[in-house]
Amino acid sequence: MKIQVGKNVLSANDQQALANRRRLDELKLTGVNVLASPGAGKTSFISALLTMLPTAYRNGVIEGDVAGRIDADKIAALGFPVTQINTAGGCHLDAGMIARAMDELKLAGPGFLFIENIGNLICPAEFQLGEALRMVVASVPEGDDKPIKYPLVFATAQAVILNKTDLLGMVDFQMHNFVAAVRAVNPDAPIFTVSCRKQEGLSAVVDWLLQHAGPAKG
Amino acid sequence: MKIQVGKNVLSANDQQALANRRRLDELKLTGVNVLASPGAGKTSFISALLTMLPTAYRNGVIEGDVAGRIDADKIAALGFPVTQINTAGGCHLDAGMIARAMDELKLAGPGFLFIENIGNLICPAEFQLGEALRMVVASVPEGDDKPIKYPLVFATAQAVILNKTDLLGMVDFQMHNFVAAVRAVNPDAPIFTVSCRKQEGLSAVVDWLLQHAGPAKG
Repeated sequence: MKIQVGKNVLSANDQQALANRRRLDELKLTGVNVLASPGAGKTSFISALLTMLPTAYRNGVIEGDVAGRIDADKIAALGFPVTQINTAGGCHLDAGMIARAMDELKLAGPGFLFIENIGNLICPAEFQLGEALRMVVASVPEGDDKPIKYPLVFATAQAVILNKTDLLGMVDFQMHNFVAAVRAVNPDAPIFTVSCRKQEGLSAVVDWLLQHAGPAKG
Repeated sequence: MKIQVGKNVLSANDQQALANRRRLDELKLTGVNVLASPGAGKTSFISALLTMLPTAYRNGVIEGDVAGRIDADKIAALGFPVTQINTAGGCHLDAGMIARAMDELKLAGPGFLFIENIGNLICPAEFQLGEALRMVVASVPEGDDKPIKYPLVFATAQAVILNKTDLLGMVDFQMHNFVAAVRAVNPDAPIFTVSCRKQEGLSAVVDWLLQHAGPAKG
């Protein structure tokens, strides 16, 4: 299957993404772009990671939503720096939005900057933001066929998270089908099974993040 | 809150949508545009309606997906006419795609033409397809705040379906929050609570469809 991406449209974004990446590196921040469907549990996942990462890290969050600031309020209630982006109908975050949000957030590392993208498995996958790591969060009740229907987001992720494992057995979901569907488009990315609601499986994700925290180690 | 829609970009689509609507009316078909997040249960919902509608109706389905034909195969297995559209990365269906799919499907009523849109709560809401009715399918595990985060799709729907009610109590979802969030953007649309997995609540949706089947009555 050929995935069509408008190269000329993206080039200005890609340039800004490279500038963001340099800025993040200089600030000793590891950018983590978190993509998922609406309601897969991105905010719960990021919240869990924030509370589990070593306290020596200076971590923050950029929250992307079409409208509202529910998620930013949840992160702020945990005591972490957060900036809300509202796209007013826009279906993805772009690198320019991230640059402006970084101006507002004024975060400096060493640490992680989590970027919660718009709830959408399609458009956000086409836009680099300057992240070092891209994670896709799928969830059990969405079914096991999402990597077949939305291949680009699964193909371009460095880690695949399967959330809401506490609902296994209560919905139509076969783990072997999901793993096979991920592997068909992404042979290498680790697949972490977690339940943010039950706080299960998350320490393996934290370990993986710490292993991949390039500039944040400094 | 102001929802921004690119009027000039949409005008060619709107013209094609009007032509689709005239064609559907002439064929005595009621077009039903079904929108939802990935994995909310659109295919299960449409499948249930197809098997419950009176057999005198000649019903069919246009399936939209970024990739794959899993959903079309499910509909075909039920014995109903179906055409699959693959957008190869595109995040929504447009009226031109529907016109071509109707050429292929060759469906004539009286009956319903269900259009399963791409799994995406944002972009599809901006594109008229020529439908008489627009339904949005939300699901319990997605959480009760989706109408706040994705207002346009809930504001423009003639009916709101809440699926996977069998998971109430097992996830963080408060019905009164969901209803209030829908009502904030859409004061009038009926809200149907259903479980496609348990086959519960669907007869009310069938009754509503039959009441709103303008040309299909003929």
